Amino acid sequence: MRLKIDVVLDYDLDGAADTLLLVEAAGMPDQIIVSQDLWVSSLEPLRATVGSEGVGQRCWAYAENRLKVNYTATVEIDRPDVPLASLAETPPRMLPAETVNYLLPSRYCESDQFEGFLAQEFPNLRGGPLAAALLDWVGGHLTYQSGSSTGVTTALMTFANRHGVCRDYAHLLVALARAGGIPARCVSAYAPGVDPPDFHAVAQFWLEGAWRLADATGMAKPGELAVVAVGHDATDIAFMTTFGAAILNEQTVTVTREIV
Amino acid sequence: MRLKIDVVLDYDLDGAADTLLLVEAAGMPDQIIVSQDLWVSSLEPLRATVGSEGVGQRCWAYAENRLKVNYTATVEIDRPDVPLASLAETPPRMLPAETVNYLLPSRYCESDQFEGFLAQEFPNLRGGPLAAALLDWVGGHLTYQSGSSTGVTTALMTFANRHGVCRDYAHLLVALARAGGIPARCVSAYAPGVDPPDFHAVAQFWLEGAWRLADATGMAKPGELAVVAVGHDATDIAFMTTFGAAILNEQTVTVTREIV
Amino acid sequence: MRLKIDVVLDYDLDGAADTLLLVEAAGMPDQIIVSQDLWVSSLEPLRATVGSEGVGQRCWAYAENRLKVNYTATVEIDRPDVPLASLAETPPRMLPAETVNYLLPSRYCESDQFEGFLAQEFPNLRGGPLAAALLDWVGGHLTYQSGSSTGVTTALMTFANRHGVCRDYAHLLVALARAGGIPARCVSAYAPGVDPPDFHAVAQFWLEGAWRLADATGMAKPGELAVVAVGHDATDIAFMTTFGAAILNEQTVTVTREIV
Amino acid sequence: MRLKIDVVLDYDLDGAADTLLLVEAAGMPDQIIVSQDLWVSSLEPLRATVGSEGVGQRCWAYAENRLKVNYTATVEIDRPDVPLASLAETPPRMLPAETVNYLLPSRYCESDQFEGFLAQEFPNLRGGPLAAALLDWVGGHLTYQSGSSTGVTTALMTFANRHGVCRDYAHLLVALARAGGIPARCVSAYAPGVDPPDFHAVAQFWLEGAWRLADATGMAKPGELAVVAVGHDATDIAFMTTFGAAILNEQTVTVTREIV
Repeated sequence: MRLKIDVVLDYDLDGAADTLLLVEAAGMPDQIIVSQDLWVSSLEPLRATVGSEGVGQRCWAYAENRLKVNYTATVEIDRPDVPLASLAETPPRMLPAETVNYLLPSRYCESDQFEGFLAQEFPNLRGGPLAAALLDWVGGHLTYQSGSSTGVTTALMTFANRHGVCRDYAHLLVALARAGGIPARCVSAYAPGVDPPDFHAVAQFWLEGAWRLADATGMAKPGELAVVAVGHDATDIAFMTTFGAAILNEQTVTVTREIV
Repeated sequence: MRLKIDVVLDYDLDGAADTLLLVEAAGMPDQIIVSQDLWVSSLEPLRATVGSEGVGQRCWAYAENRLKVNYTATVEIDRPDVPLASLAETPPRMLPAETVNYLLPSRYCESDQFEGFLAQEFPNLRGGPLAAALLDWVGGHLTYQSGSSTGVTTALMTFANRHGVCRDYAHLLVALARAGGIPARCVSAYAPGVDPPDFHAVAQFWLEGAWRLADATGMAKPGELAVVAVGHDATDIAFMTTFGAAILNEQTVTVTREIV
Repeated sequence: MRLKIDVVLDYDLDGAADTLLLVEAAGMPDQIIVSQDLWVSSLEPLRATVGSEGVGQRCWAYAENRLKVNYTATVEIDRPDVPLASLAETPPRMLPAETVNYLLPSRYCESDQFEGFLAQEFPNLRGGPLAAALLDWVGGHLTYQSGSSTGVTTALMTFANRHGVCRDYAHLLVALARAGGIPARCVSAYAPGVDPPDFHAVAQFWLEGAWRLADATGMAKPGELAVVAVGHDATDIAFMTTFGAAILNEQTVTVTREIV
Repeated sequence: MRLKIDVVLDYDLDGAADTLLLVEAAGMPDQIIVSQDLWVSSLEPLRATVGSEGVGQRCWAYAENRLKVNYTATVEIDRPDVPLASLAETPPRMLPAETVNYLLPSRYCESDQFEGFLAQEFPNLRGGPLAAALLDWVGGHLTYQSGSSTGVTTALMTFANRHGVCRDYAHLLVALARAGGIPARCVSAYAPGVDPPDFHAVAQFWLEGAWRLADATGMAKPGELAVVAVGHDATDIAFMTTFGAAILNEQTVTVTREIV
């Protein structure tokens, strides 16, 4: 599937500020960047660095008073939709080094608090069958509600509140998976079905030797997600982090399926 | 039913300290104090004040270096075990003034976080039937585990952890009830079946014009609880609050049914 | 000093809903209600009940689809501005029964977390001098910033964030005072100098036998605050609590000094 | 300086359990492993994987009923004690990729909450001078107190409590540094002066092109710390993580300076 992505960001800054942008689709075997163009109102040349875990890239800008970003891309995604439930468990001691940290709690995913719930609700599931059950559980127990969470909302609150936006779905799913012994991370992505159209956040499980995408909101299938960045939770994958105050003028994200 | 209560507390203090004791069984229509005796190693005469919401009494002591407390009582309890599910809902606007605050969140009972769960899990229940369902739910979903919680454990954590001691059971039940529109408070009490023997904490719902006791741990029935104090949560009903450091030497609570 | 108060509330409701209103100025010896008028778009007669701790009154309404409230009042305030620092400490064991609960932590005022800070920063202060120092400390260390806090912001967060609105100032001041052994509660009030004009929240300390008002934002003096309600924290003193969804159309609070 | 390290761990397990051990001193240019020996009561051969950020190694064991670990090592440390205050700031946009995540909040280091405090208390400091000031501030404002924190204690609580153990010192220092724009991580280490003798936790700042060790407890200097592992906070650097229940029989850590 081929996606066309068009992003416009326009923010007022208070003077000059360093800004970290995570807006570029990542090149990877199952996701080819056909073309892309990033323009930023930066005083200095953009500085690109590799993204977390070697996925995609971060881009540093240095703008004064106003930050404008235009990003357009065409991405060819060829990612099979593997049924999670068919994937075997990997015992912790067999996990590759780079997945171990994703078993541990993070700022918004207090996986240390959910072990009792996991043991009670899913006593006999491990690995892929557990991941599939958790995906269903989160999708079935949360209600999507714009504006229902804030920058301090954690998985623990969402578990009781039962509502949130995509990042809350991802946080809860990731926290539960980690509590169940499955390495899990958060992923920012572009997808055509996101409503309202915006940057999207989903989860990723390490199962049978690879990271597997899963969207608890049900808005996007793995095969139509253009991955931007991965991380422990929303902190690592924010599309824009400004070191200073920023006030929104405009932000639009348009993602369409290209009919070939 | 008649209970005999015997409490011994022995703490080392760091110098002289004010100490608030909530250890005396409360006299009330369904709970008659047949006899009781409180002795405290206080430098000054004990100062008794009425307990929260007019229930029982608090006693201030002023001890130096060591605090020793002996409390013995015989309490006659005649409290029918009203089936919660039979009690009607009171709409919020019909609640008596003194119950309204017990609809609101407190330090350990973040009822503001549970509305989504209530709406989802118990969409059609209100009043007594909801109280009965919540009592079952908490009793059925938590595991009693000594030492599994600390002084900062809240209802939200217990909701995910799924284990705790009596105060955690009471906190979660109270938080859920408040989120469901039922005034609910925490109660400290003596009961013969508590294992390990100790001060006990239970919940209380305001339903059909009266406060109704409920023990989510299942250890005690309303008819065999000798109420000591009521409050928003564990903060209000602690059996001992010392304004200074206190180190435990001995603490025993013995409660027996008196065979007449 | 005489205050004229004019409040207009206009909310859309989702069907019929019970609503608790705490908008009426409280009659008390140092605050005389010269005249007042409350009109609410209620389907049933308003039901008034006494406020927390016997201060003021709460009013229950039952409106359908739309809730409109008009409240006007003229209040004569004659409250001396007692210097806090001149007021003696009351040892805990001498506190009246009704003040003891206000030594304890509540939902937004985790006083149990601040003892270390109190011991370190104000090691030799107690009672009135401590209250005065805390008032200065909070006023001097927080920055007023509209929109900087949410419904889950607690005193602990504000202590680190160093910004907030009036309720955050009050929460932190109350939490610190309790940790320092001074009974403290939160108070909702009308005051002429509040900017932007709105319901106001301040703190109240129990010192030398009476509750003493203190506004850490510095916007209002005790002598120009028309007290509405008192409570443990913002949960108890919210001007409006709707049991159902409510969407704001209009809310204006106008408070003016009447020149006699 | 040469350190001799001797560790004995002895735990009862509930059946067979995967266990992740982070106990081996890391080989690195300024820390040479002269000799080391790790013996674990594992049913299977130990499985070593590289540690977080390529520092040291993690070792997976699989023991049944009882886990016994003996680790001895001799480590030669040659690490100059660079004065932090002399190190220049690196603007965020110049940071290397692998440091960027350490600007972000984690489970126990809510750096997102401390920006206000940083701006207020250290308005004119950046980079090394800020790191030095923060190290002094944390060391000067916390009191070391065994048993004063639990597994849910975060930097925010410690900031108010003002006491803790080494991990709490490290968490607060790391959270403050990140809020001040300095990449910071937590480090587990062996050091001879730790009292009581145990695994130690310190902080690490990225300044002038390298990670710089700092111990806010003041127990150890950079030149006498044998680094074991690095991570976001205590979650990443725990010396032992068991996937199942473990009960302590014995745990001793002995670190001595070898007189050559």
